[in-house]
Amino acid sequence: LAGAAKADDLQTLQKDPKQWVMPTGDYGNLRHSALKQITTENVGKLAPAWQFSTGVLRGHEGAPLVIGDVMYLHTPFPNNVYALDLKDPDHKILWKYEPKQDPSVVPVMCCDTVNRGLAYGDGKIFLAQADTTLVALDAKSGKLLWSVKNGDPSKGQTSTAAPHVFKDKVFVGIAGGEFGVRGHITAYDVKTGQQVWRGYSMGPDADTLIEPGKTTHLGKPVEKDSGITTWEGEQWKIGGGTTWGWYSYDPDLNLVYYGSGNPSTWNPKQRPGDNRWSMTIWARDLDTGKAKWVYQMTPHDEWDYDGINEMILADQDMGGQKRKTLVHFDRNGFAYTLDRVTGELLVAEKFDPAVNWASKVDMDKSSKTYGRPLGVAKYSTEQNGEDVNTQYVCPAALGSKDQQPASYDATTGLFLVPTNHVCMDYEPFRVSYTAGQPYVGATLEMFPAGKDKGETHTGNFIAWDAKVGKIVWSNKEQFSVWGGATSTDGGVTFYGTLEGYLKAVDTKTGKELYKYKTPSGIIGNVTTYESGGKQYVAVLSGVGGWAGIGLAAGLSKSNEGLGAVGNYASLANYTALGGVLTVFALPN
Amino acid sequence: LAGAAKADDLQTLQKDPKQWVMPTGDYGNLRHSALKQITTENVGKLAPAWQFSTGVLRGHEGAPLVIGDVMYLHTPFPNNVYALDLKDPDHKILWKYEPKQDPSVVPVMCCDTVNRGLAYGDGKIFLAQADTTLVALDAKSGKLLWSVKNGDPSKGQTSTAAPHVFKDKVFVGIAGGEFGVRGHITAYDVKTGQQVWRGYSMGPDADTLIEPGKTTHLGKPVEKDSGITTWEGEQWKIGGGTTWGWYSYDPDLNLVYYGSGNPSTWNPKQRPGDNRWSMTIWARDLDTGKAKWVYQMTPHDEWDYDGINEMILADQDMGGQKRKTLVHFDRNGFAYTLDRVTGELLVAEKFDPAVNWASKVDMDKSSKTYGRPLGVAKYSTEQNGEDVNTQYVCPAALGSKDQQPASYDATTGLFLVPTNHVCMDYEPFRVSYTAGQPYVGATLEMFPAGKDKGETHTGNFIAWDAKVGKIVWSNKEQFSVWGGATSTDGGVTFYGTLEGYLKAVDTKTGKELYKYKTPSGIIGNVTTYESGGKQYVAVLSGVGGWAGIGLAAGLSKSNEGLGAVGNYASLANYTALGGVLTVFALPN
Ligand SMILES: O=C(O)c1cc(C(=O)O)c2c(n1)C(=O)C(=O)c1cc(C(=O)O)[nH]c1-2
Ligand SMILES: O=C(O)c1cc(C(=O)O)c2c(n1)C(=O)C(=O)c1cc(C(=O)O)[nH]c1-2
Repeated sequence: LAGAAKADDLQTLQKDPKQWVMPTGDYGNLRHSALKQITTENVGKLAPAWQFSTGVLRGHEGAPLVIGDVMYLHTPFPNNVYALDLKDPDHKILWKYEPKQDPSVVPVMCCDTVNRGLAYGDGKIFLAQADTTLVALDAKSGKLLWSVKNGDPSKGQTSTAAPHVFKDKVFVGIAGGEFGVRGHITAYDVKTGQQVWRGYSMGPDADTLIEPGKTTHLGKPVEKDSGITTWEGEQWKIGGGTTWGWYSYDPDLNLVYYGSGNPSTWNPKQRPGDNRWSMTIWARDLDTGKAKWVYQMTPHDEWDYDGINEMILADQDMGGQKRKTLVHFDRNGFAYTLDRVTGELLVAEKFDPAVNWASKVDMDKSSKTYGRPLGVAKYSTEQNGEDVNTQYVCPAALGSKDQQPASYDATTGLFLVPTNHVCMDYEPFRVSYTAGQPYVGATLEMFPAGKDKGETHTGNFIAWDAKVGKIVWSNKEQFSVWGGATSTDGGVTFYGTLEGYLKAVDTKTGKELYKYKTPSGIIGNVTTYESGGKQYVAVLSGVGGWAGIGLAAGLSKSNEGLGAVGNYASLANYTALGGVLTVFALPN
Repeated sequence: LAGAAKADDLQTLQKDPKQWVMPTGDYGNLRHSALKQITTENVGKLAPAWQFSTGVLRGHEGAPLVIGDVMYLHTPFPNNVYALDLKDPDHKILWKYEPKQDPSVVPVMCCDTVNRGLAYGDGKIFLAQADTTLVALDAKSGKLLWSVKNGDPSKGQTSTAAPHVFKDKVFVGIAGGEFGVRGHITAYDVKTGQQVWRGYSMGPDADTLIEPGKTTHLGKPVEKDSGITTWEGEQWKIGGGTTWGWYSYDPDLNLVYYGSGNPSTWNPKQRPGDNRWSMTIWARDLDTGKAKWVYQMTPHDEWDYDGINEMILADQDMGGQKRKTLVHFDRNGFAYTLDRVTGELLVAEKFDPAVNWASKVDMDKSSKTYGRPLGVAKYSTEQNGEDVNTQYVCPAALGSKDQQPASYDATTGLFLVPTNHVCMDYEPFRVSYTAGQPYVGATLEMFPAGKDKGETHTGNFIAWDAKVGKIVWSNKEQFSVWGGATSTDGGVTFYGTLEGYLKAVDTKTGKELYKYKTPSGIIGNVTTYESGGKQYVAVLSGVGGWAGIGLAAGLSKSNEGLGAVGNYASLANYTALGGVLTVFALPN
């Protein structure tokens, strides 16, 4: 118990706004900082203070950690790790870790060679390499302490998610939904690397760690082996539901929250059924992995609306009652507010008015379709069928929001959300499964949501009221906002743009107060920390990710890159590849 | 004649301090700007204004051009070219040129995959690709107008120098002194790409364009076929003397100036004789290429002291008399002041007190060794012989200064010089020639010049009085200053450092007034320009070049990279690869 208490230093550390000790800011994924030296008044004077090139091209997602006086920085494949000395005026490299990985993993990464960051805990830095090796490095020396293989790239299994340390365990997911990988989340002991438990997204209850009769879905007990019975035959074995996003933890409830991705293949005709538990919000016991509740947002997905986006654990006043809520901005265009204790669905509203594939989520508890989206036939790729091009579905496969995490500002009660404003044409086709080969089964073409009105912008940065499910303000962005937001007690919210701006806006009004064009497009998240009495704002630039795949992988045909290339082709007029950390501060 | 006048728009353009129309700043290689918004008083407030990642790793030498409202940017291999719109608030890419080059050129580049920049003239942007292809692009559209092959990489011939446009001709050199390439400079017609003339560094007079009896060396006519008779047998055919540096032009004298590099091989025993005209300052007629005068600085080189550094055409008051001088800081550690009309040697003094291989240059006109360095036997790798390790020779092979160009500030009469402070052990060995294979013949180990006194710094940034040959002030730099200097009428001189700082110093005193850590080590030169009424300072970071070859090529043995790796190993504690343009300005 003493050991466990020590391992949960993190619970204390994350409350220190001078540091940024986890990829999500804190256990609850709030991504909010209590720092307030930089304010709406002075942020206009912000300027780069120092920079560091990572030596790696392609997409730089995630953000550095700051533990004490050291900054820990990661790169996309080959996943180098740098420890930078923040006390040193030159920000010298204290140590560097350069994994040797077989480059054959690169072609089985669906959406660029991204990595969403490092985790810290128990004096260790954890890195989930692209090839699914989880390594624990001594935070002081960079020495490799232990490593464990979490998957097999030859079967299309890869790692892009940041590891997450909650208490005495480090959690890793798996990517490969476009290769028929069956998703799982795995807890390893931070001390030894021993596997503690693994929970699959589908399969028998023994694999999913669902307790029939106990685990609930929308308030009702889940039936036995639902992860098999909602599939045809043995399709669940190649069923997707991967876990490449962000995870949260509520220490009081001892529950871990995360979402599972799309069912494989993208051709819905090939996989009848609800395809549980793809596209699902999971609440699992930290120690046992047992599922307390689940909520499937997009049963039988027909559009690749992975449910992996972050779960924000904000306590909110819901109609006069303080509730432990979970807020989730899903790829499918709905923002969900749930009771995170029980999994009760409280709010489900579109956070982009362009969303058209469903009219709404049925909130009538007495309805047979309670909690399910009410689909619009015209946009059903299942109904339209194979080899038929279903047109102008909104959002596109990359969703109204993708991996870019939102932040929550308790002062205003607003969620600050980087979003996509993109629609698509989607044509499913029959595909057969071969291990390690793409198992996609659809051809896509994406375009600006307002194309029919002559609009060209593909993003909005919005403020959302999750108590009622309404947009409070919305700023048009030329490109999808593919980097994460961070709000602060200075009343300022920061985020990066695909063409390369670090922007600061007034959290209350959305008014743009500052912008700076960093070396490359930003798909990373913003970190803020304090060092030597001064507040800093740090962000990685380095264009790529799914939105930037044309630049990152050198693709030019508009339906290449799983349909994303054409929609972002004009990005090439603004920026080029290259990973650079920029650290901003107010002038002395 | 009207056409020629038009082609010499450059003579007017280079006088406009708002633009930066040639890689050398002006025809005379002064690298000085008349801009003075940024002053010694306010430069401390400088800050990055915007940045642009080039999408290429490895060493970024040279600097962008600014023509009108457009910035032209180049990269190392694969030598992409960007035209950036300076009027556009996003600095959008107007066009991009991406040559297709056979990557087999990379292993025959001695000192990283560098490229020292673009030239402009006659509405065209000229790029000398690594593979020796010279291309002319339409400055407006990026359209390829003509291209010509200047050499053959399969024989070790490559291109790293910037092309230089003087009047109606574009000049290109050749690299490959470490591959037995016989150097030459070639003039092409800017309009058509037709070769106008080529002057070799060695060979018969018909090749060198030396006019026996007319061309002078130290005031005396040069003898017939001196480029053959100072070699044994046919060694001149693989004799080096490459031309990979900077060129200058005096329009009044109609003379082009440049230096030739080391004789091949680095083993002096294998090539008896003075090895003319390696290591030589050349003054050639622009229109015919005929040599007016030559001056060989290091006859029969024993240390790889290439003579290619820039020739600065400053008019100076020499003992009461205004003279057209040429000032040259040579790799061999001597700074030469010559009369550029006649080639008369006026001053030759050490610009780093550490220099020990020669006691001095003989300035006694009546002496038999007039104009020659007086060697110190102990440091003669020729006398010590093959397979003997000659120790602690100063400077090291990369010289007291290498390709990093100096600037001249007429107001103070000072030359601002980025220097190296490095010595070496040098062990020559017998080598045989195979076309396209390294033809080096020496093993080197480099170290800080003050190693014996426990000093570790390998650079100094100095101010030099070339009228008398004296250091006026000297700033220690932790690393060799591998980027070029630019002085301004604001009284500020700018330069970059290998660990990544852009620095501003008081030209008069050397006092450091500003520094900023850019994303990567700087080996590029500083450009300053004005746009929208505001002065900007631009520099490429991106560590590499010979000094940074350990990082650039991933080498770690101390004598790898032609002996440079060990001396700069600690650079890996400060910076990593990645090309980024940073543009600085005063805050609004
Ligand atoms: O199904 C999967 O396993 C999987 C993995 C990943 C990934 O690992 O990056 C992405 C996606 N799907 C995906 O659907 C998606 O939109 C996406 C965007 C990105 C990105 O980093 O920009 N990755 C992924
Ligand atoms: O002899 C040659 O042809 C040749 C070529 C080059 C080059 O092309 O970069 C260099 C050198 N020599 C050389 O001696 C040298 O010190 C050097 C430094 C650099 C650089 O860019 O950092 N290049 C070269």
